[in-house]
Order: sequence, then structure tokens, then C-alpha cells
Amino acid sequence: MSSQTKFLLDESRMPTHWYNIAADLPVALPPVLHPGTMQPVGPDDLAPLFPMELILQEVSTEREIPIPEPVRDVFRLWRPSPLYRAHRLEKALGTPAKIYYKYEGVSPAGSHKPNTAVPQAWYNAQAGVKKLTTETGAGQWGTSLAFAGSLFGLEVKVFQVRVSYDQKPYRRAVMETYGATCIASPSSETNSGRAILAKRPDHPGSLGIAISEAVEIAATNDDTKYALGSVLNHVLLHQTIVGQEAMMQMEMAGDDPDVIVGCTGGGSNFAGISFPFIGQQLRGGKKRRIVAVEPAACPSLTRGKYAYDFGDTAHLTPLTKMHTLGSTFTPPGFHAGGLRYHGMAPLVSHLKELDLIEATAYHQVGCFEAGVLFARSEGIVPAPEANHAVKGAIEEALRCKREGKADVILFNLCGHGHFDMAAYQNYFAGKLTDASYSEEELAMALSGLPSVPA
Amino acid sequence: MSSQTKFLLDESRMPTHWYNIAADLPVALPPVLHPGTMQPVGPDDLAPLFPMELILQEVSTEREIPIPEPVRDVFRLWRPSPLYRAHRLEKALGTPAKIYYKYEGVSPAGSHKPNTAVPQAWYNAQAGVKKLTTETGAGQWGTSLAFAGSLFGLEVKVFQVRVSYDQKPYRRAVMETYGATCIASPSSETNSGRAILAKRPDHPGSLGIAISEAVEIAATNDDTKYALGSVLNHVLLHQTIVGQEAMMQMEMAGDDPDVIVGCTGGGSNFAGISFPFIGQQLRGGKKRRIVAVEPAACPSLTRGKYAYDFGDTAHLTPLTKMHTLGSTFTPPGFHAGGLRYHGMAPLVSHLKELDLIEATAYHQVGCFEAGVLFARSEGIVPAPEANHAVKGAIEEALRCKREGKADVILFNLCGHGHFDMAAYQNYFAGKLTDASYSEEELAMALSGLPSVPA
Repeated sequence: MSSQTKFLLDESRMPTHWYNIAADLPVALPPVLHPGTMQPVGPDDLAPLFPMELILQEVSTEREIPIPEPVRDVFRLWRPSPLYRAHRLEKALGTPAKIYYKYEGVSPAGSHKPNTAVPQAWYNAQAGVKKLTTETGAGQWGTSLAFAGSLFGLEVKVFQVRVSYDQKPYRRAVMETYGATCIASPSSETNSGRAILAKRPDHPGSLGIAISEAVEIAATNDDTKYALGSVLNHVLLHQTIVGQEAMMQMEMAGDDPDVIVGCTGGGSNFAGISFPFIGQQLRGGKKRRIVAVEPAACPSLTRGKYAYDFGDTAHLTPLTKMHTLGSTFTPPGFHAGGLRYHGMAPLVSHLKELDLIEATAYHQVGCFEAGVLFARSEGIVPAPEANHAVKGAIEEALRCKREGKADVILFNLCGHGHFDMAAYQNYFAGKLTDASYSEEELAMALSGLPSVPA
Repeated sequence: MSSQTKFLLDESRMPTHWYNIAADLPVALPPVLHPGTMQPVGPDDLAPLFPMELILQEVSTEREIPIPEPVRDVFRLWRPSPLYRAHRLEKALGTPAKIYYKYEGVSPAGSHKPNTAVPQAWYNAQAGVKKLTTETGAGQWGTSLAFAGSLFGLEVKVFQVRVSYDQKPYRRAVMETYGATCIASPSSETNSGRAILAKRPDHPGSLGIAISEAVEIAATNDDTKYALGSVLNHVLLHQTIVGQEAMMQMEMAGDDPDVIVGCTGGGSNFAGISFPFIGQQLRGGKKRRIVAVEPAACPSLTRGKYAYDFGDTAHLTPLTKMHTLGSTFTPPGFHAGGLRYHGMAPLVSHLKELDLIEATAYHQVGCFEAGVLFARSEGIVPAPEANHAVKGAIEEALRCKREGKADVILFNLCGHGHFDMAAYQNYFAGKLTDASYSEEELAMALSGLPSVPA
């Protein structure tokens, strides 16, 4: 028990290895399949898209994977990140629960995304790659890869979903400040983009389409690779530095979390905070409740089907088994752009199937309400994505109040909302509504899942 | 000499006192005058606007003034702030100089302003004040006071310059997220606002007008006080925590600055980084070059007159002796809104007259160029105001390159640019120009300075 607010690790205690949960899984992850042969893909199948070091991380079952020293050197710009006890929020809620949050908004990009952008850029640079392509929706990932690329001399080309490109020019300006090139997607630079534009010249774009374009460019250019900001095993691996630090900081605080909460879009920040704790449990340690919070308007974990599906719209990616709403599902517009993805990380999906995690979904207005309460009590304005984790943590704290329990709650505040004030502006103007999809559309998208031989 | 990049102080070394340079001045600051009587103002004259503790700080000559523990407790959310060695920027410039920067963008508001907003809000709350008024241009100060007010239960009313209110709705959204009320200035809520609107209903507003409105509300309401984000002695005092921390961090780095650079609008972040070092010199320590960098479009230190002037447009404030462009001077529009003020802090002006500091001015396009180079090498996107300090530091580093000297340069990176991406967008689109004023307008404004008996 402590009256302290902030828990900082000395730089000397910054983790030297990533934690790989594959080493501790009671059941191995289903294989990734080649969509042509329906056979498991091998490293060579992925080589056009990723450097070999990242491919090896994707399939590794080593528990600890060393973080290269040049990557740790960049991490020192903002890591170890702080852990806070939310004394003021607890007081505002009148809860006996103790609430802690790990804050990843201290990175130069303002979110957890540089935790994987930096190693991805570094491994590519080491492999002699000159250019990286990627997609971005809200812009957090594109910003982070642009930042990382600038540090290691890589050209970064970002396919930005057309509607974001037009409506969020400031995000583009950040990427350009870091030296990246932004292209509105669908674009005329790729076959997949041109095919969509031919049907509908004013297409607003989607994350699935932008992924197709970025993958196509990487697959067809020798000096170019592709980088993804979530979903894949190696991306989730890179985020485990968050949970490892949090574990040491909770020890400093003299508390041990009973409940861990994270928001989930592709699953990376949730994995980052929770996997090291889940691993501890899998090796015989304390059993904790691990709660994934997703947007009710794009609820892959709570409403999706656990099945093999494509990661993109043009079906250029391999097939992975995951909770999916169907690769043709178009989530309605809402403000947590970073959570608008049809699928969930295979590792997170697998843990859900193994009953090692729980999932819940909230609509956006309630999440913004939670975010504003958080800002007014704790002083940090959360990103719309992070508001889902805030909402989840507050609901747990209110449950503790009802039950008279003093649970220790830990959540990941994965980014600040400084780039998202238009969303708050809409919230205060009463213009924000709880966007939702039609059941017919979801059923239609799910009916189109690829059939995979048993 | 160190290859380390980041220098972090342990929380236990966060300063317990502010450093008051008035204790070490070789010549006392000229008195503040009552505009009616032309006599020095006493504490009672200021009592309608400020709580007594802040008035006493304004006139104190004690060298060390204790930082209240509840204020330090809030500071722990982000303080001590990091000091960085800019290895990558040095390499990009090919300079033998060593460049260090203190980074104040880690605060919840993204700038150094909370360093004074928090104590101001706390002293007001302690004095039983219920409401605070203030003005804001770019929004950094309004955001910071809104943040501080939310922590101590104070209502905060911000008069935001009309043109910013309309063009920068996101800034307003941040203030509203912290629970503050924003009013476009000139407004119909005050006599000074109504008088201006009567002449010109579509008046775009100015910082001077917004100050008049905020002061008027505070002066005419018993439960309301006024808070200023720069210029005044107590505000500069509160910022000295920055330089005190930097001094300890430079020791950790094993270096001692030869040149210290800060940008100047009202003077507070410059004072924060430099006053503790200047004080050391005044007490017989090392002589360093201290360089104030101001915008060429609003050059109070380099082109203004050192004279008594009002702090606002409606002439509701006392008269202070400072470098001023005249209270009727309207700086042309440029992107470092936090530097668009006609006067300079009396303490900074006084040090300039005593030849204890130097001043230089740069136009904005060159400052943005410097900021983009900084972002691409160091990873942090600076605020437009901070770009002036970056530019100043880079010019010093290039001088060292020409002279083959390995000077140690320290500058204050007072805030990040996440709220200012529209300015970067204009820069990349080639739309940014070097705004300037007309010599006639400056001469006219200077001719209107109040006459004060010798």
C-alpha cells in the first residue's frame, strides 16, 4: 500500500528481452495457411514481405527474445514509461478498488506503437531494406513507423485510408514531418487500388484496402518490405515490454493486480500489458482476470466467429485463425479508428478460446464519458481507443464498489488524445452517437469466410 | 563526456524551492507603477486580482521560496522532466558542439505552462477563491490553467482570442475536456469587450484585449481572481524548477553549458531554463552566454523600447518597465501564437539592460526548417514557439562548426507541436511566409507609450 502516485523504473531495469507467450501456451497456435495450397506457410512464403529476423520471431517458441541494443537505445528516449496509481480517479468514483495505469502516451508518437515500429524499422534496416510500406487509419501507426524510419534512414510510404487522409490532415502533417510519404488509399499506385477506384472513384477507403495496397507494393519491389502495426505474433511480442515493466512497477507499488484491462483493436496494446502476467499464470503463478475491451461497433472478440480469414480486403495475405467479423465487414464510422479492424490477433483469439481472457464491448459515448472523467481527475486526455480501457477499468472499479471489494485493477493507457480533439469536440457538442452495424451486414460478411479443409 | 542520451533525475531530487533571481540582482527591478497615481503599487493594489501569497512572491527578495507539497505532488505526474543529449542532431549538423535540451513537453498539457498553472491554482484554492479567469491565444496557457483548475476544484473561464477560437477548435476542446469554459474575445461579457465590439462587431481579437476582459471580470467579482501565464515575476519564479533540474542533470552528464538558449514571448520558459544559471554567475560562478530567441515578427527585446507600458489593450493593468512594442502594437499573424505579445517580462528586460543576456530574432520559415530537422533527427516534433529555441541552438552549433569549437549548448524545448500540425501542414505546402509588421505601425505604437515622470 502506498500513497505514491508515479512509479518510475530506473533505465537500468528496462527489459533486455521480449516475452514470447508461445513458449508457455498449453495448446499451440493453429498454423497460418497459404490461401492457394491451404498448407501451413513457411518462412520463405513470408520473405517477400518481412525480413527473416521478424519471420523467425513470428514462429519462435523461445520464451525470451533479446531486444537489440540499438533498439533499446531508441527506447530510452521515453522508456521505461511511467506507471501511475489513479488516486484522484478512485476518489471521484468512491471505490475501494485500487486503480493503476501504465502510460504509453509518453512516446514521441504519443502511443504504444513505437514499441514495435522501432524494432521493425531496425530489423529491416539491418537486412538492407531501403523502403517500408504500411497502412494507417487514424494515423497512430503511420506516425510511429514514420518516426522509426527517420531514425534508421528508411523511406516510409504510408497508405492512409482516404477518409482519414481528407478529414485528418494534421495526422498526415506529423508523418510528413518525420519524412514519410502519405498516399490516400485506394490509390492508383497499385492493382488493388486501381480495381477499386474503377468501380467507385470516390471510394472512402478502409484499413483492409490500405493493407492490400501496402502489401502489393512490398511484394512486387525487391528493396521494399511491409510493416504491420498489430495482429501479428512478432508485433504483439514487441509490446510485451509494456507488461514486463508494469510487473516490476506493481512490485515497487507493493500491489499485485487482480484484474488487468486493455482495449483491443488488432490486439497489440492489450497483449503488451497482459501477456507477461498471463505467462506468469501459465507457469503456475497467480490467476488474474484479464479483460479485453472492444468497441461495440466492431466487436470481433464478442461477436465475431473464430475461423480462418484473410487479413485484408483484396485477399493478398495468408489465412490466419482468429475472431473475425469477415474481411468484407465495414465497421461503421466511430472515433477510435485504431480499433476499426475486422479481425483480432490470432494469439489474443487463441487465449480467448482457451478461456485465459475475457472480452467485453462498449459503445463510444460511454467511453468518451469515461475519458472525460479520467482527464478531469488524472490530468491526462486519453486517445479515443484508450477511452475503452478507461471505461473497462471504471466499470471494474464500480463493481468493486458494489461488492465492497478492494481489487487491484491495472490498465493500459495506450495513448494520449492530443491528435483526437475533434472527437472530443463532437462529444461536447452532443454530436457523438453510438454507431452500430446492421446484423444483416455482419451475417453477410461472416457468410463469406473462406472455407478451409478440416 | 557521455554517450548517454537521456538524463533523468530521481523524484527525490525534484527541487523543493523555486529560485528567486531578485535576491541576486546587482540592481533592483524598477517598481511597478499605478497608472493613476504613477506611484509604486503596493500589495493591496494587486489584491483584487491575485491571492496574497502570489503577490508576496511577486515582490519577494528571498532567494529560495518553498514549493508547497501539494504542488510538488501534482508535479510528480511528469516531473522531474528529462534532459536529452541531442547526439543525432549533432551528427546531422556535423558540429563539434555538444547539444543538450531540457524537454517540458512531457506535461499533460504538452508544455512548460503547468509549472506555474498548478501553483497558481493551488494558492488561489487555498485563499478560498472559487473561479479563475485568464486569456489564451494559441491555447497552451488556457489548457494548462484548465488542467490545474480541474485538480483543485476551481472553475476556469478562458477568454480565447476570437481568431484562435474560430480557427483552432481543438484547443478549445482540450480546455473543455478539463472542464473549463471558453469565451471568444472580444465578448459581450465585459465593458472592454463590448466597447470593442461596438466599434467592430467582427473584431478578430488580440491577447491584449483578452487580458483586459479577464482582468475586468476578476476585478469586479469577489470570488474570482485572475491568472497570467507569463511576464510577471511570480510566474517566472515558478518556471525556475526547469533550470534547477537542468543544472543537476548537466552535472549527471558531466558537462557544463557554455551557451543557454530559450525562446521568448512573455519570457517565462526562457527565465525557467536560464535564471538558476544566471544566479550562479551573479554569485561569482561561471560566466555563460544566455541567448533569448524571439520571433522577428514580434521582436520586443531586439526592436522594442525599454519603457513603462501597460500589459493590456484597455489599459486596466499597472505600468511595468519592460521592452515593449507598445500596447497597441498588433503583431502580424504567425504560427508561434505563444510568442505574440507586445511586451517582455520586466525581469528578462532588466537582465537585458544589465547585459546579462543576449537577444536575437528569427523569422518563422527558418524556425520551422529547424524544427523539421530536429523532429527527423531527435524524434520529437517541437511546438512552433519551441522551434525558435531549436533554431537558436542550431545557429550556435553551426557557429561552433565554423570556429572548430566544442561548446556545450543547452536549450529549453518548452513544448511539443502535437496541437500545431496545421502550421507544419502549411510549411510543407509552401504556404508559410515570413510575416512582418510595418515600420510605421511600430513607430505609431511606440509613440503612444504612456509618459511617466522621471
